[in-house]
Amino acid sequence: MTAHRRGAPVEALPRTLSYQRPKGEQLQEILEGVIAALQPGALLPSERLLAERYGVARATVTQAVEGLVSRGLVYRVHGSGSFVAEPKFRQPLTLTSFTEDMHARGMTPGSVVLSQAVVPASEVVARHLALVPGSPVVHLERVRTADGEPMALERTHLPAQRLPGLEAADLTDASLYKLLEREWGVRMADADQWASVVRLASDEAALLQVADDQPALLFQRVTRDQGGTTVEYVRSLYRGDRYEVHTRLERLEG
Amino acid sequence: MTAHRRGAPVEALPRTLSYQRPKGEQLQEILEGVIAALQPGALLPSERLLAERYGVARATVTQAVEGLVSRGLVYRVHGSGSFVAEPKFRQPLTLTSFTEDMHARGMTPGSVVLSQAVVPASEVVARHLALVPGSPVVHLERVRTADGEPMALERTHLPAQRLPGLEAADLTDASLYKLLEREWGVRMADADQWASVVRLASDEAALLQVADDQPALLFQRVTRDQGGTTVEYVRSLYRGDRYEVHTRLERLEG
Repeated sequence: MTAHRRGAPVEALPRTLSYQRPKGEQLQEILEGVIAALQPGALLPSERLLAERYGVARATVTQAVEGLVSRGLVYRVHGSGSFVAEPKFRQPLTLTSFTEDMHARGMTPGSVVLSQAVVPASEVVARHLALVPGSPVVHLERVRTADGEPMALERTHLPAQRLPGLEAADLTDASLYKLLEREWGVRMADADQWASVVRLASDEAALLQVADDQPALLFQRVTRDQGGTTVEYVRSLYRGDRYEVHTRLERLEG
Repeated sequence: MTAHRRGAPVEALPRTLSYQRPKGEQLQEILEGVIAALQPGALLPSERLLAERYGVARATVTQAVEGLVSRGLVYRVHGSGSFVAEPKFRQPLTLTSFTEDMHARGMTPGSVVLSQAVVPASEVVARHLALVPGSPVVHLERVRTADGEPMALERTHLPAQRLPGLEAADLTDASLYKLLEREWGVRMADADQWASVVRLASDEAALLQVADDQPALLFQRVTRDQGGTTVEYVRSLYRGDRYEVHTRLERLEG
């Protein structure tokens, strides 16, 4: 949990809103500026104070703050006010294991293995791994943690025949990619990933220790080795309040 | 709206579940296989029939179907059953305007301009566009439609001094990127984009014609021209039930 800190001096706020744009939108932008200048855990100016300063209805301020809450920039503590949230994790642009990514951020990665077994590939899994349905695949289900806090629920499928013994390897707090390279000489090279928005089922929300109605990012990824063979089909649920996806887009000449 | 079609023949379903894995998960995978083989609008086997065939509780089937609904693969019609949903739009890997993207899909893009004016840049907007706060920026707010259906709510900021007259240009059903190139010689070259999950405010949900509690994808993007100058800061809300983000990830040698 973030320690609460000293908040924004009111004098730093702009004095007035402009007439040309919706007041709620302007308030959100002002607060975003305030948030950017503060540390996580800092107290925001109270809604009452903001309503007075800008001569707007309290409900307008509340809605603006709720917009910031829904975007994960702010959290509320009942009876205490609104505070600056921890910044979201930006998924790196390169193919990186969760373990490597957390180490790069100076955090301690952890894994809780929920399931690790050889199972027959369903039609969908088989298609992604270019196998015949029913072929043996290693199914891994892990809760991934950062400094002990659950971040993601990963469900990975890998071809069992290529990776004999993976179902018995110790994956607690370990990097799967490092293990694949060390034990089976498999080096991951690239991946295609699709991210979409989902609602969590209640068992998933419980594993991630978030509210039942919390939306999440579903990452579906196929990962290929250096020979271009698909070695992994992953379906991960990442906490929507803690994660975002970074993409670099380049324009084709047309 | 999708026309309802003939559904899946029951004989095509696998006969049994395996003992090794949660039944709900296996049911979801079986249904995903069924969905992949059907057209949008096709009826899925009834929950009663699935519960009987696999000897599982009706609640297990309902939960599996709800998982597919939450991922946007299936929609329910009260009293009629569950149907295969339209596939999601995959945002292209290249920097593409909404108009170009819809044309490439054979759909008719449209825009409803809600706001188009020169306003002073807030601190956040100014930072993204590398301007001094208060500098004039053109603020555009548009609902983007595909074949008449609302898909996204885009809020764009562009530097007004570089693009004189943009606040008066006709943007209804037009491509902003084409206009920038034709009228001001500005050619977009690349962009950084961050996608995260948000809940829609009720006015945003109304503009997108979705339910109030529907989660959405928030895209924040800074777009640069061929000289590397940032020309655009966009914040767009894309419908979570209709969109997904495609990313290609490559591994750094380490």
